[in-house]
Amino acid sequence: MNRIFAIIIFTGIPLVIAGAIFHWNDILMFFLSCLSIIALAGVIGRATESLAIVSGPRVGGLLNATFGNAVELIISIFTLKAGMIGIVLASLTGSVLGNLLLVLGLSFFAGGLKFKRQNFSIHDARYNSGLLIFAVIVAFVIPEIFSMTLNPQKTLSLSIGISVILITLYLAGLFFKLVTHRGVFGSSDKEEGETEIPEWTKRKSIWVLLLSTVAVAFVSERLVQTFETIGDKFGWTELFIGVIVVAIIGNAAEHFSAITMAMKNKMDVTVEIAVGSTLQVAMFVAPVLVLVSLLMPEPMPLVFTVPELVAMITATLLVINLSNDGESNWFEGLILFAAYLIMGIGFFLL
Amino acid sequence: MNRIFAIIIFTGIPLVIAGAIFHWNDILMFFLSCLSIIALAGVIGRATESLAIVSGPRVGGLLNATFGNAVELIISIFTLKAGMIGIVLASLTGSVLGNLLLVLGLSFFAGGLKFKRQNFSIHDARYNSGLLIFAVIVAFVIPEIFSMTLNPQKTLSLSIGISVILITLYLAGLFFKLVTHRGVFGSSDKEEGETEIPEWTKRKSIWVLLLSTVAVAFVSERLVQTFETIGDKFGWTELFIGVIVVAIIGNAAEHFSAITMAMKNKMDVTVEIAVGSTLQVAMFVAPVLVLVSLLMPEPMPLVFTVPELVAMITATLLVINLSNDGESNWFEGLILFAAYLIMGIGFFLL
Amino acid sequence: MNRIFAIIIFTGIPLVIAGAIFHWNDILMFFLSCLSIIALAGVIGRATESLAIVSGPRVGGLLNATFGNAVELIISIFTLKAGMIGIVLASLTGSVLGNLLLVLGLSFFAGGLKFKRQNFSIHDARYNSGLLIFAVIVAFVIPEIFSMTLNPQKTLSLSIGISVILITLYLAGLFFKLVTHRGVFGSSDKEEGETEIPEWTKRKSIWVLLLSTVAVAFVSERLVQTFETIGDKFGWTELFIGVIVVAIIGNAAEHFSAITMAMKNKMDVTVEIAVGSTLQVAMFVAPVLVLVSLLMPEPMPLVFTVPELVAMITATLLVINLSNDGESNWFEGLILFAAYLIMGIGFFLL
Repeated sequence: MNRIFAIIIFTGIPLVIAGAIFHWNDILMFFLSCLSIIALAGVIGRATESLAIVSGPRVGGLLNATFGNAVELIISIFTLKAGMIGIVLASLTGSVLGNLLLVLGLSFFAGGLKFKRQNFSIHDARYNSGLLIFAVIVAFVIPEIFSMTLNPQKTLSLSIGISVILITLYLAGLFFKLVTHRGVFGSSDKEEGETEIPEWTKRKSIWVLLLSTVAVAFVSERLVQTFETIGDKFGWTELFIGVIVVAIIGNAAEHFSAITMAMKNKMDVTVEIAVGSTLQVAMFVAPVLVLVSLLMPEPMPLVFTVPELVAMITATLLVINLSNDGESNWFEGLILFAAYLIMGIGFFLL
Repeated sequence: MNRIFAIIIFTGIPLVIAGAIFHWNDILMFFLSCLSIIALAGVIGRATESLAIVSGPRVGGLLNATFGNAVELIISIFTLKAGMIGIVLASLTGSVLGNLLLVLGLSFFAGGLKFKRQNFSIHDARYNSGLLIFAVIVAFVIPEIFSMTLNPQKTLSLSIGISVILITLYLAGLFFKLVTHRGVFGSSDKEEGETEIPEWTKRKSIWVLLLSTVAVAFVSERLVQTFETIGDKFGWTELFIGVIVVAIIGNAAEHFSAITMAMKNKMDVTVEIAVGSTLQVAMFVAPVLVLVSLLMPEPMPLVFTVPELVAMITATLLVINLSNDGESNWFEGLILFAAYLIMGIGFFLL
Repeated sequence: MNRIFAIIIFTGIPLVIAGAIFHWNDILMFFLSCLSIIALAGVIGRATESLAIVSGPRVGGLLNATFGNAVELIISIFTLKAGMIGIVLASLTGSVLGNLLLVLGLSFFAGGLKFKRQNFSIHDARYNSGLLIFAVIVAFVIPEIFSMTLNPQKTLSLSIGISVILITLYLAGLFFKLVTHRGVFGSSDKEEGETEIPEWTKRKSIWVLLLSTVAVAFVSERLVQTFETIGDKFGWTELFIGVIVVAIIGNAAEHFSAITMAMKNKMDVTVEIAVGSTLQVAMFVAPVLVLVSLLMPEPMPLVFTVPELVAMITATLLVINLSNDGESNWFEGLILFAAYLIMGIGFFLL
């Protein structure tokens, strides 16, 4: 896997640079950028993982929690800079839907074909479902509904307040999970004696992390510039590009590992990747983008479109209901995937 | 019971035929048709049951799953043919509400008066609640919300896509329940040695099924023609006729068995009838009607009115919450019934 | 505590009387009235408690269930009389949000700082969550949605019907909890041998109850008259006064006991106060006010504003999700408190 990533990166990035200089066709650039970003995201994931193992569980958890969606954050910042607020919100929505429905769905399904029933920590499931409801159903719904009667300035104030609260609660949640209530959470997959060996050394991990992040930033800027042409050529709306395309690119590497883990019956890791990543997007990436947008020409309030919000709410209710017994099977996976399909068709037509 | 059904059928149907020829008063025709359909539905239920026992659990499950709401399907097709799309959607809503709130409510209540607590399979409850959320909260809500910004043509495309997905998932669910995960589900009521004896022979069941279905089709066509007059005379809106009247007629026989079973403390059967029937309506009858409507002069998108949808969503959330502990008592029954009453008043006033 | 209450009452009430006669400044009157009401509510709570112990569990439960929100009921009736229907509905909303999010949040948090995990009866939690969904998500949502297409007269009829159903179900719930299913509910905190000793004699309790109630009525009328000035001076909207200010004043004494109990690890009492009080407001105080309003110049339909309703729905879903495992910890408390904060900011800006 590392070799494939390396090949893509070392041929993809020079090509993107060449394309940027010689103004290649947008469609070609779109595909080159996508491929490079997927590979870079994979490498960043591995570097973070290695660094996390070296740093011990607490700092490691923190690292995973901040770098886990670094790629997405970077793409979004460049999209914000280009003034395409609609695509940023759509790609946040897409991350939530992609993680909850597509990744968890395919993981439950693929795992369920091999194992009749798979189990994961009920404590994790409950912790996750409480925060999912808080983030999606309280923190996202309130500004949406209240913004209908508030003026834009007050809507922005409300968004800023909520963003600060979300980030604070996200950090408090890490403190809860890693410090005060450590040991309660999801270590059931790991055997007692098993110590994880980092793939790369600390030094190498840090370098890879730094260089890849710079590369992602560079490629993301090119990618964002192709959106308009791509939308016109393929008949994709801004919403569809954000919800489906950007979300899949930004999360592809992660998706791949979640499904692999499910097939090894390591469901706690799968759930942690899929739901943990959703929470990170909703409680950390989204509010950080709201705050970052204050430095941009146009600020971004935390107000999704109604279809986006409804899709996230229904996805959340479905996932909570299916996962809070700590068990999964292929049919539950199929239900989640079917829900993703329905929403995908909806956003395509919109 | 069979004798009563037979008497009603053998006096009711000739009268309906006579009435159709001599153009009797619509109100008389309405009551004659209703009575005949209730009795025919009872007989169809018994024939299906007998056939299911003879055919073994898998084919039997499939038979129950397709013929269980045959009467409703037939009435709806004739209503569609008469162009009354509003009544079709309303009667689907009414089936969902009637099964979830009225039938389950009266069953829990009646059973709870005799037994302090009654239990049913938690596996069934979870399977049901996952699919209920999928069908009502994802598959019905998405077209509603998205249709607000889509043009009618695209709304119809979305409805068709969702209908295909719903039917596929419904069949996959049967495969899951009857094949890959058999044994997990709700056989706790039956003692091991107990073999069920079919009421009728295979031959008789098939004949009864065929003839009754033809009769239901004939009577339904008369019934549909009386709706307009009935609405005017009694001051009932289209919505009220669909949600309350048609739904109760189409499901009366079923309702009766569910309550009888609850009073015998066979709660798994009760839940299977009430919730299973809801799922069948939502995941099979409704999407089939959408597809059938494409052959009719006016196609029917899967878009309920807002009050209908909200009633179904709230009913779903209430039932899931009350049933996912696998226990019931008289007070839970009363809560469900009270919710039905509130919605009934609402639809009456609307 | 009693001494502090006594001092506040015996200095506060004469001052309120003096102020009423000499037309003191509204801001001063607002603070005097608030303080007096908080103290009176504390005293009423104690009197009810003593009376409940003397009267045995059944009558006692009934007493608590009717007098528990007496103060709120009285303030609301005077607000209704002054024609400020918006504030009445807002203060009902505020009571629900305050009890579910603020009180339960602070209790879980404060208790969680002392105890790693705290437990409460799962039977209580389920009973509560069923009724919460019924009251907030069925009985409050249906009139809201249906009122969009109903004329005011029909909306009022629907409200009256729902109010009668709510009160009936509330009484049936008491019958269930105190008579048919007694013993199932929340006595896990009390040791077997422990008999409660009433603070006051029966005679004293009744006198305190009567006099305090009269005093609350008098002070409430003054308080209501200051709302307009207060809103202007502090830039508070009617909604904010109702949802946050009135709700906190009316429930302060109760809030204090809930948190105290949590810190003593008597979580069943805490949950009973917070959620029990919510149910009482939603299923008893609110519908009684609808019925009482029929005697007033302007009747009050059971139709909240959309932000109020959405806040209550999301609060309900969050609390049900966090509490239905019968366990709490500091982080769950923080989540609830954060949700209250978000809504508080929202209502302040509205």
